[in-house]
Amino acid sequence: MNKDFPDDSLMLHTDLYQINMAETYWEDGMHKKNAVFELFFRSLPFGNGYAVFAGLERAIQYLNEFRFTETDLDYLEGELNYKKDFIAFLRDLRFTGTVHSMREGELVFGNEPIMRIEAPLVEAQLVETALLNIVNYQTLIATKASRIKQVVGDETLMEFGTRRAHELDAAVWGTRAAYIGGFDATSNVRAGKVFGIPVSGTHSHAMIQAYRDEYTAFKKYARRHTNCVFLVDTYNTLKSGVPTAIQVAKELGDDINFIGVRLDSGDIAYLSKETRKMLDGAGLNDAKIIASNDLDEYTILNLKAQGAVVDIWGIGTKLITAYDQPALGGVYKLVSIENEQGVMVDTIKISNNTAKVTTPGLKRVYRIINKLNNKSEGDYITLEDENPQEENHLKMFHPIHTFVTKFVTNFEAKDLHHTVYENGKVCYTTPPLNEIKDYLKENLELLWDEYKRSMNPEEYPVDLSQKCWDNKMRNIQEVKQSIRNATVRY
Amino acid sequence: MNKDFPDDSLMLHTDLYQINMAETYWEDGMHKKNAVFELFFRSLPFGNGYAVFAGLERAIQYLNEFRFTETDLDYLEGELNYKKDFIAFLRDLRFTGTVHSMREGELVFGNEPIMRIEAPLVEAQLVETALLNIVNYQTLIATKASRIKQVVGDETLMEFGTRRAHELDAAVWGTRAAYIGGFDATSNVRAGKVFGIPVSGTHSHAMIQAYRDEYTAFKKYARRHTNCVFLVDTYNTLKSGVPTAIQVAKELGDDINFIGVRLDSGDIAYLSKETRKMLDGAGLNDAKIIASNDLDEYTILNLKAQGAVVDIWGIGTKLITAYDQPALGGVYKLVSIENEQGVMVDTIKISNNTAKVTTPGLKRVYRIINKLNNKSEGDYITLEDENPQEENHLKMFHPIHTFVTKFVTNFEAKDLHHTVYENGKVCYTTPPLNEIKDYLKENLELLWDEYKRSMNPEEYPVDLSQKCWDNKMRNIQEVKQSIRNATVRY
Repeated sequence: MNKDFPDDSLMLHTDLYQINMAETYWEDGMHKKNAVFELFFRSLPFGNGYAVFAGLERAIQYLNEFRFTETDLDYLEGELNYKKDFIAFLRDLRFTGTVHSMREGELVFGNEPIMRIEAPLVEAQLVETALLNIVNYQTLIATKASRIKQVVGDETLMEFGTRRAHELDAAVWGTRAAYIGGFDATSNVRAGKVFGIPVSGTHSHAMIQAYRDEYTAFKKYARRHTNCVFLVDTYNTLKSGVPTAIQVAKELGDDINFIGVRLDSGDIAYLSKETRKMLDGAGLNDAKIIASNDLDEYTILNLKAQGAVVDIWGIGTKLITAYDQPALGGVYKLVSIENEQGVMVDTIKISNNTAKVTTPGLKRVYRIINKLNNKSEGDYITLEDENPQEENHLKMFHPIHTFVTKFVTNFEAKDLHHTVYENGKVCYTTPPLNEIKDYLKENLELLWDEYKRSMNPEEYPVDLSQKCWDNKMRNIQEVKQSIRNATVRY
Repeated sequence: MNKDFPDDSLMLHTDLYQINMAETYWEDGMHKKNAVFELFFRSLPFGNGYAVFAGLERAIQYLNEFRFTETDLDYLEGELNYKKDFIAFLRDLRFTGTVHSMREGELVFGNEPIMRIEAPLVEAQLVETALLNIVNYQTLIATKASRIKQVVGDETLMEFGTRRAHELDAAVWGTRAAYIGGFDATSNVRAGKVFGIPVSGTHSHAMIQAYRDEYTAFKKYARRHTNCVFLVDTYNTLKSGVPTAIQVAKELGDDINFIGVRLDSGDIAYLSKETRKMLDGAGLNDAKIIASNDLDEYTILNLKAQGAVVDIWGIGTKLITAYDQPALGGVYKLVSIENEQGVMVDTIKISNNTAKVTTPGLKRVYRIINKLNNKSEGDYITLEDENPQEENHLKMFHPIHTFVTKFVTNFEAKDLHHTVYENGKVCYTTPPLNEIKDYLKENLELLWDEYKRSMNPEEYPVDLSQKCWDNKMRNIQEVKQSIRNATVRY
């Protein structure tokens, strides 16, 4: 196991069991059976009232490159001892499936199928791990970003997290997710280059140290850069940094666009108020105060309560790592499979943990929008062949506490699934990032404020249709019956 | 800002302020001044008593590719409006510096320079962000893995986290870090391919669902795979999964190598004990029990206390995201720079937060090993030109509580820094991964157990030499004096 192979493909970016299952299916002739998997998470992160889906662009990139390279096959055969016949099968394998997915920027809730993959069993199985890896992270960060956005309102948010991100991919794709979620700019120049996200940044403490004093450093910076934000906490914020920034701004006058100062340490509540006074006292009323230093929605709320005067928030670690809950528990479950007679049969996974019992069958998610107020009444999960728009009087009931019911009339049932891959061909173009961002904003307008507050939000209704619920109960009974029939066999 | 550029380089994987500082230095003619930055973190993650350095291989890869591509330059000029003269300068820029670094697998503690970059100011500045991004994450995961290893002792550890990792890079580089830290195998096949890490995995719940019953699924799997681990919790662990696994194992006898069963949900303490009884009762005493499901060092300790009978632990989310502390706060600080007269002058960053005051000057880290017992007395940070090995009677004192002192004799002072880059040329070959792993094991032998326990470990001494401490105090006084002299200037 000492030979290293080039990292020229993502086909092996999967768990080994996927390959072993692929081999089992193939050896048995099961591999071409049509299978349907759904990707969903069970509970919302951060105690938030909603999540924001992101990851589709990267997921499609991944599916577009579905193909084992020769080095993949050499490794599987030479190091892991898969046999030649199976290797030959893998060599020709392509993704021929159909994928339905929510759009990026869509609001999504627990137990809703975000993506649905319909493909020959072996193909659908092999893509599980990478799809989860991509969707879990990007959705987590878009949600965290949106949560922070709810707290700051119209103030500006900058993403500063690259140095604390989990390796390089997370920095750039996390930044993209943060931008979707409501951030305005990033410090990561590569994310600016490849995604067109606005980039922002001026200088660090090192520049002050390099020039030894703030006056020289600020002056030097301003010679080439007209838009100036001066970092004021290298030595002493109020005695040295802010006065020097003011001095330089006044000396240079209209030669520069003095945007403001950045506070990166110390007591932001106190320092921002004192800094504001000093700036205003010097007639620099338009100068902005930018704050950073381990901020998140909790510290921002707290700082605001203390009267902190901050115009622009720089958020790093706590956003890019989703610090208070660094994983979204997205899963990928088989919901239906073609049987020996060529008929699709629903499947279920039972568990002692009731939250882990899956909902069988191909499903769709509809957002039920009340036409009277243009607010959402909740989401409604149906089996594939139902169309709630045809109902005049839609019954919605809680999927656990089934006695909690309501009837909705005069509604629009918005289908949240889009076909992004059809029979192995991509049929979706990722919209420009600003459209995705705007789409999220529109979606948030549909939600009552009670679902959007950062602490103890109301639970948004995610209901199963009667048919979907009945189908689930029938599947549960069948499994229980077959376990009872089995008894001990050894 | 709508034009997307190809992602063909990591040169812009940096914060925008690095580019703006680079331009300031260049415009001013400062950019060639020799500068020294040190990379370190302030406090240990997870309340652990030590950290494990990882990330050097990737850091060297990154430095080897230091070069702006034409698309980088097009973006900077066309979209961010940097001027042609500066773009021309960047086009020819190469990394010409010298880098000292600890080896991967080295034990590292707070405030110790892990890497030291000596280069023309502009080059050393531009590499900051990516180096921190790489080292922070990989060191965090290697440390988390080692912490878990301390708790399981000789039991086997498998890394199962890809689906919850923060995007793709984190999954593979995190796996490599986990392997260094003490894990035995991974489920990520790509990590197996590119790093030669042993891979492991059999099948998931989906295979049971695809075949509808466990008996058929296990039998089908065993036709092609002789090493069998059966997942037993798809429907009901003790009533269905385990009895069926036993039945299949007995039916197939020597036709397969029945390794054991995997429990992935429910009460692992109870289920593992009952499963063990059932396996032993069937004469399958060698069969192993593999447990997974949101495990980490805390749940493992707890399960062990409850008498759980687990041979192999599969760890996913909590490891790969470093769930309880998903960021290491590594920083990169200027410690010395060439002045106008061409003389190197030490620099310091002062802060209201005393822990953020940097230690000026080029430094080295020595591990002081007592020759009598081959245990470490602590680490000793010196200025570059000191050699503690020359002392007969080494005085070590606490860098904050300076009255805490001890004298050490008969010691070996092990220099932890290695030259990995010299004047722009790489001069270090990453050892095989198993050597790095072994190196960590040897290092851990040097530490008393009290530093290695997972809860409330003793604080390992990291002391400054007298010269290093005196130099720091002198720098602090100079800064304070210059702030006093400055007074208000506007």
